[in-house]
Amino acid sequence: MEELRNRTVIEEVRPLVNGGLFPIKRIVGQRVDLDAHIFSDGHDVVSARLFVKHKKDRTWTILPIAHITNDEWTVGFDVPNQGMYSYYIEAWADYALNWQHELDRKVKGGQHVNVELLDGVQYLDYLRPKDAPSKALIKKGKAFFADEEKYNEALDLAFSPELKALFQRFPFQTFVTRTPEYQVWVDREKAGFSAWYEFFPRSSSAVAGAHGTFADAAKRLPYVAEMGFDVVYFPPIHPIGDVNRKGKNNATSATKDDVGSPWAIGSKLGGHKDINPALGTLDDFKKFINSARALNIEVAMDFALQCAPDHPYVKSHPQWFRWRPDGTVQYAENPPKKYQDILPIHFECGDWQNLWKELLSIVIYWVEQGVTIFRVDNPHTKPFRFWKWLIAQVHEKNPDILFLAEAFTRPKIMHELAKVGFTQSYTYFTWRTGKAELIEYMEELTTDQSRQYFKPNFWPNTPDILPYELQQPNEATFLVRFFLAATLSGNYGMYGPVYENMLFQAFPGKEEYMDSEKYEIGRHVWDTRGKLKQVIKMVNQIRKSNPAMHDTFNYRTCTVQNEKLFGYLRSDGKDNHLLCVVNLDPYYAQSGMVLLPLNLVGINIDQSFTVIDLITEASHPWRGEWNYVEINPHGLPFHCFKITK
Amino acid sequence: MEELRNRTVIEEVRPLVNGGLFPIKRIVGQRVDLDAHIFSDGHDVVSARLFVKHKKDRTWTILPIAHITNDEWTVGFDVPNQGMYSYYIEAWADYALNWQHELDRKVKGGQHVNVELLDGVQYLDYLRPKDAPSKALIKKGKAFFADEEKYNEALDLAFSPELKALFQRFPFQTFVTRTPEYQVWVDREKAGFSAWYEFFPRSSSAVAGAHGTFADAAKRLPYVAEMGFDVVYFPPIHPIGDVNRKGKNNATSATKDDVGSPWAIGSKLGGHKDINPALGTLDDFKKFINSARALNIEVAMDFALQCAPDHPYVKSHPQWFRWRPDGTVQYAENPPKKYQDILPIHFECGDWQNLWKELLSIVIYWVEQGVTIFRVDNPHTKPFRFWKWLIAQVHEKNPDILFLAEAFTRPKIMHELAKVGFTQSYTYFTWRTGKAELIEYMEELTTDQSRQYFKPNFWPNTPDILPYELQQPNEATFLVRFFLAATLSGNYGMYGPVYENMLFQAFPGKEEYMDSEKYEIGRHVWDTRGKLKQVIKMVNQIRKSNPAMHDTFNYRTCTVQNEKLFGYLRSDGKDNHLLCVVNLDPYYAQSGMVLLPLNLVGINIDQSFTVIDLITEASHPWRGEWNYVEINPHGLPFHCFKITK
Repeated sequence: MEELRNRTVIEEVRPLVNGGLFPIKRIVGQRVDLDAHIFSDGHDVVSARLFVKHKKDRTWTILPIAHITNDEWTVGFDVPNQGMYSYYIEAWADYALNWQHELDRKVKGGQHVNVELLDGVQYLDYLRPKDAPSKALIKKGKAFFADEEKYNEALDLAFSPELKALFQRFPFQTFVTRTPEYQVWVDREKAGFSAWYEFFPRSSSAVAGAHGTFADAAKRLPYVAEMGFDVVYFPPIHPIGDVNRKGKNNATSATKDDVGSPWAIGSKLGGHKDINPALGTLDDFKKFINSARALNIEVAMDFALQCAPDHPYVKSHPQWFRWRPDGTVQYAENPPKKYQDILPIHFECGDWQNLWKELLSIVIYWVEQGVTIFRVDNPHTKPFRFWKWLIAQVHEKNPDILFLAEAFTRPKIMHELAKVGFTQSYTYFTWRTGKAELIEYMEELTTDQSRQYFKPNFWPNTPDILPYELQQPNEATFLVRFFLAATLSGNYGMYGPVYENMLFQAFPGKEEYMDSEKYEIGRHVWDTRGKLKQVIKMVNQIRKSNPAMHDTFNYRTCTVQNEKLFGYLRSDGKDNHLLCVVNLDPYYAQSGMVLLPLNLVGINIDQSFTVIDLITEASHPWRGEWNYVEINPHGLPFHCFKITK
Repeated sequence: MEELRNRTVIEEVRPLVNGGLFPIKRIVGQRVDLDAHIFSDGHDVVSARLFVKHKKDRTWTILPIAHITNDEWTVGFDVPNQGMYSYYIEAWADYALNWQHELDRKVKGGQHVNVELLDGVQYLDYLRPKDAPSKALIKKGKAFFADEEKYNEALDLAFSPELKALFQRFPFQTFVTRTPEYQVWVDREKAGFSAWYEFFPRSSSAVAGAHGTFADAAKRLPYVAEMGFDVVYFPPIHPIGDVNRKGKNNATSATKDDVGSPWAIGSKLGGHKDINPALGTLDDFKKFINSARALNIEVAMDFALQCAPDHPYVKSHPQWFRWRPDGTVQYAENPPKKYQDILPIHFECGDWQNLWKELLSIVIYWVEQGVTIFRVDNPHTKPFRFWKWLIAQVHEKNPDILFLAEAFTRPKIMHELAKVGFTQSYTYFTWRTGKAELIEYMEELTTDQSRQYFKPNFWPNTPDILPYELQQPNEATFLVRFFLAATLSGNYGMYGPVYENMLFQAFPGKEEYMDSEKYEIGRHVWDTRGKLKQVIKMVNQIRKSNPAMHDTFNYRTCTVQNEKLFGYLRSDGKDNHLLCVVNLDPYYAQSGMVLLPLNLVGINIDQSFTVIDLITEASHPWRGEWNYVEINPHGLPFHCFKITK
C-alpha cells in the first residue's frame, strides 16, 4: 500500500495558466499574489508555506502563507529579477502548533492540563536550534512540563511567543502535501511598456526613388526619437527573392526595377542570416542599432519563417520543404489569396530537428549582432511546440529578448502563442472602433486569467492593414485611433510615416494601402510639424512620465452618459491617476456626465479636486463622482486628465 | 530532442473535477456532455474523437467530436451502466480531409488541380478497407488521379461522400494529441433519488419502556412504507460501551439502567462487526433487512469510526490509538464539548495499513450481510485519503454501495468528501430558512461545477439537530420544512417519528432535543393519521410519479413578487414540469405574481394552459408568464403545481 497518511489538501492554486502547464508572467518589480484552498480533515491546526527560487538562486526562499477565511489562504512575493522563478506550496497538519492551540482552549475552559504539558515534551524534543537562549528555553520547558510544582511557569513557557517562533522555525512535519513546481516568467520593463515605430528602411532615402540604406534610415532616427518612440521595427532586411518576385500592388510579375516584398526572403545573395546589399552591410546594420541605442531606441527585427523559391535552403536542404508530385514546392496560399513568391517551411519533415536548430540559430545569430526584439511574422501558421521550444532556448541564455506575435487570427490561437512564450501580441484593436466593442475588448484583455500571460500591443495600422476607419483624411479619426492605442495599452505601435502623414489611399475595396511599400519604395515627409505629430510627441511624453500608463492591466472602464464618449481610468494604485475621455464621433461635439470611481483615486465623495488636461494644461474644478465633459473633435477629440487633490 | 512535431492542442476539457484528479459523477441512464477547446496552428482541417470504455468493456467505443464554433468542440455519450467509465480525447491535423477541403476551395476558385489530384494518391494509399466496393473505389481513384483524360471523373471521386467516409474510418494520423484518461463514476438511481427515514430501533417496542428489537422495528416498516420512504437508516446497532457511558441528556455518568449512546461503539460484547444483543442477533438483523426489502426499502447502516473505551480494539490493537503520557487514551473532544464515551482512532499510526484494512473489512462484512447503504458518521474528522481508498476498494466489487457523508462542517471539506467518493452529503439546508438564503444555496448546489460530484441530501432535523425553526409546535413550519426538503432535493430524509409527530422540546438554548433518544429509549405514536403524515405520504407519491423530481440539478428559481413566497420549477426537460410555490410565513396568507419561464416548459407566450395542484387537485387556468398565487399557511402552506397544456 502506498503511503496515504497525508491529511492535507491544497487545491485551486491561483493564478495558474492551464493548471500550471505554462508559466504566469510578470514584469520585474511586480508582485505575484497567490491564492489557494488549503485544509485538512478535522480541526487540527494547518500550516502552509511557499518556496520561491529564481533559476539562478541556489536556495529556496521560504514565506509563510496566511489563512484568510474559510480555508482560503494567500501569499505574495516580489519578482525583482528577470528570468524564470519556480515556486511551490507545502502544507501540513502542524501538531506542535496544534498542541499549543488545544492547550490554550483547555486552559481557557478551566481544565488542569498537566498531562497535556507532559505530552508537549515531544514537540520540544523536535526543535533543533543552535543559539543558546533557545536551547535554554527548551531545557527549561522539558523540566517545567514534567514538574507539577512548576505548573504556572510551564504554562507561561508553553504559550510564550519564543516557543511559538521556534515551532515556526522548525515546523513539526509528519506528512507534507506539496504542489507541483509552478513557474513565473519575469520580463524586463519593455515587455509591458513600449512605443513602436515601424518603417521601411528602403523608403528612408532623401533622394526621390533611391533605395534607402541603413545610413539613410539612421538619419530618420532623430525624427522618430523626437516623437517619443522607443522601438524601431523594420520589415525583413534580408535578400529578396528574384523568382516569382511580386510587382507593385502585389502584381504577380515584376519588372526588373521592382524591389519585391521584403517578406519573400532569400536569393542567390543569401538567406535569413544575410542582409539585402541594397540596404547596406552587416556593419551598417550594427551601426544603425548603435545609433538607435544612443537615442534610447531598440531595434526590432522581423522574423519571418518562409523562403523565396530561390532561398539557399531550397537547394541546400530540399528536405525542409514539401515537394509536390510535379517536382515543385507548393507556394503559400490561403485561397483565394496566393503568395507565389514564398514557400512555406515543412516543420514536420523527417529532418525536423536539424531544421528547427537552424531556425533557432537565425535568432541566436541576430541576437549576437545586437538585436533584442523580434517581431514574428505569422507565428500562428507554425507549430506552437516549435515556438515554445525556440523561445525557451533563446531565453535560457538571453532573458532580455522580447517576441511580438504578429498573429491576427482566432482568439484561442493568439492566446496559445502567448502561453507558449510570446511576450506581446498584435490584437483586434485595429478593428475595434465603437464604444461598446472597445469596452468589451478591454475588459476581455484585462480579465484575471488573460492578464497572466497575454500582453497586447495596439496598432492603428500596419503595412498589411489600412482599416476602413482610416481610409479618409479625417484628422480627428487619426488622432483618436492613435490616442486610444497609446493610452489603452502599455505597448502600442504605428506604421509610419504613412500614419502621422495621414496617408489614407486604399486599394479599392480592401484594407490594403494603395501603392503599398510592401512592393515598392515609398517617399515620405519626415518632419514633426503639424498637429498630429505634435500630439503624438506629447502623448508619448505623458506615457513616460505617468506610471499609471506603464501597465495595461490597471485599465478601468468609466461610465459616460453619451454613447460617443468613451471614458477610462488608468491608475497605478498609488498616487498617479489619469482619466481619459475620448469622443468617438469625428464630426460633432459631444458632451455628457462621466462617472469617476472615487474610491480608486483616493478621493472622498464630498471632496473637491482638480483635473488637469495634460495636453492643453487647462484645469477644471470637480466635485463628487459625476462631472461634466464636453469634447469638440475639431479641437482635440479627447481629454487626458490628471487627477489632483 | 523529444518528439515535438505534434501540432494540435486540446485544452479546457469540461466538465472535470480538479482538472481530472477526481471522476465526475452520473446516474445510470444519464449523459455526459463534454466541451473542449481543440485547435492546431494554421488553417488545416483538425479532426477529433472521443474514446469511451466502461471498466468491464474490452474495447473502446469511438465517437466523433463536433466542432461548434471558434475552436470549441462538443461530444456527448450515454452511461447506461453502473461503475467506472474512462474516456479521453484525441485530436490531430487531418491531412487527408484537409486535402479534400483544399481541393474543393481551389476548384471553386477556378484552378486546374491535376497536381493536387496526383498529390492525393498518398491518402488513398493509406486506406485499408476490407470490403470490395471500397477497394474498387481506391483503385479507380488512383488511376483517375493520375490521368488527365479522367479529370472530371477524378474530381467526382475526390469529392464523393464514399471517399470522405473512408477518410473518417481510417483517419490519417501523423501526430496525435491525447488527453489523459478521465473518469466518470456512474451510480444506481437511488444515489440521486431517495427518501430516508431514520429511527432508533430501540424505541420501536410496543411496550412502554422496553428496549425495542429488530423484530419490533420490523413491525414499524409498514408505517414507514405507507408514508413512502425507501431507505430506513438506523443509528449504530453495535454493542454500546460500558466505560464512561453517557446518561440521559448527555450526563457524564450513567445509572445502570441507562442504555448509552449507540455511537459509543464496542464493549466486552463486541465491536463494529457485532450486534447489540438487546436489539437481537445477526439473523434478526438480516430478517429485518429482508422485511424492508419486501417493502422496497433499503437499510442504511451507520458507519461510525470511533471506539468506546472498552471496545475490543483498545486491548487487541492498542497501537491504533493515541496514548497519552499518563497511559490513558485521549477521548474525543472539541472544547468545550467532550465525548468521554468515545476514543478517536489514530489513522496515522505506524500500523495504519492493518488498521485501514480492518476498517475496510467492517464495511465488507456488513455488505455481505445485505447492507447496501452506509451513513458515515463525522467523515470529516477522518483523512480524505482514507475515504478515497476505502470507497474505491468497496466499489471495486460492489458499485451498488452508497455512502452518505454526515459532515456538517466547512464547505471545502464537505466538497472534498464528495470528490473522494461519498455518494451523498448532508447539507446546510437544515439552517436555510429564508427565501434569499434558500435561493442562494440552491443555486450554489446546482452550479455547473458542484453538480459534477456533490449530491445533497436535505434533512429538516436529525437526532443531533433540532433547529430553532422547529422548536415550536407550528404545523405550517413542519409542513414547509418537510416539503422544501422533499421537493428541492432528489435525496432527503427525516428523523422520525419525532418529526411527523411534531416533537419540538429542545434542550434549553441548544439545537438539541430534550430527552434525546441518543441517550435513552424513546416512545412514539406510530400511525399515519393526521395532516402532516398524510401530506408526507402524498408528497412522496408525487416525487415517485413525477420524473422532474428525480434529479436535484433541474432546479430553477422562479421569481415571485413577494419576499415570503419562494417559487421554483422542477422540470425533466421533456414533458414533466412542476412549479412549487411555498409560503415561508407560517402565520399569514401571502400572495403575489409568479414568473414561470415558459421557454423551459414548452409553452408559447400567448398560450393558455392549466396548472393543477397535485395535493388538492384544484386546477387553475393560467396565461402568459406572470400569474397570481395566494397561499394561506393555515390550509396548506405551499402549492405543488403540475403544468399541463
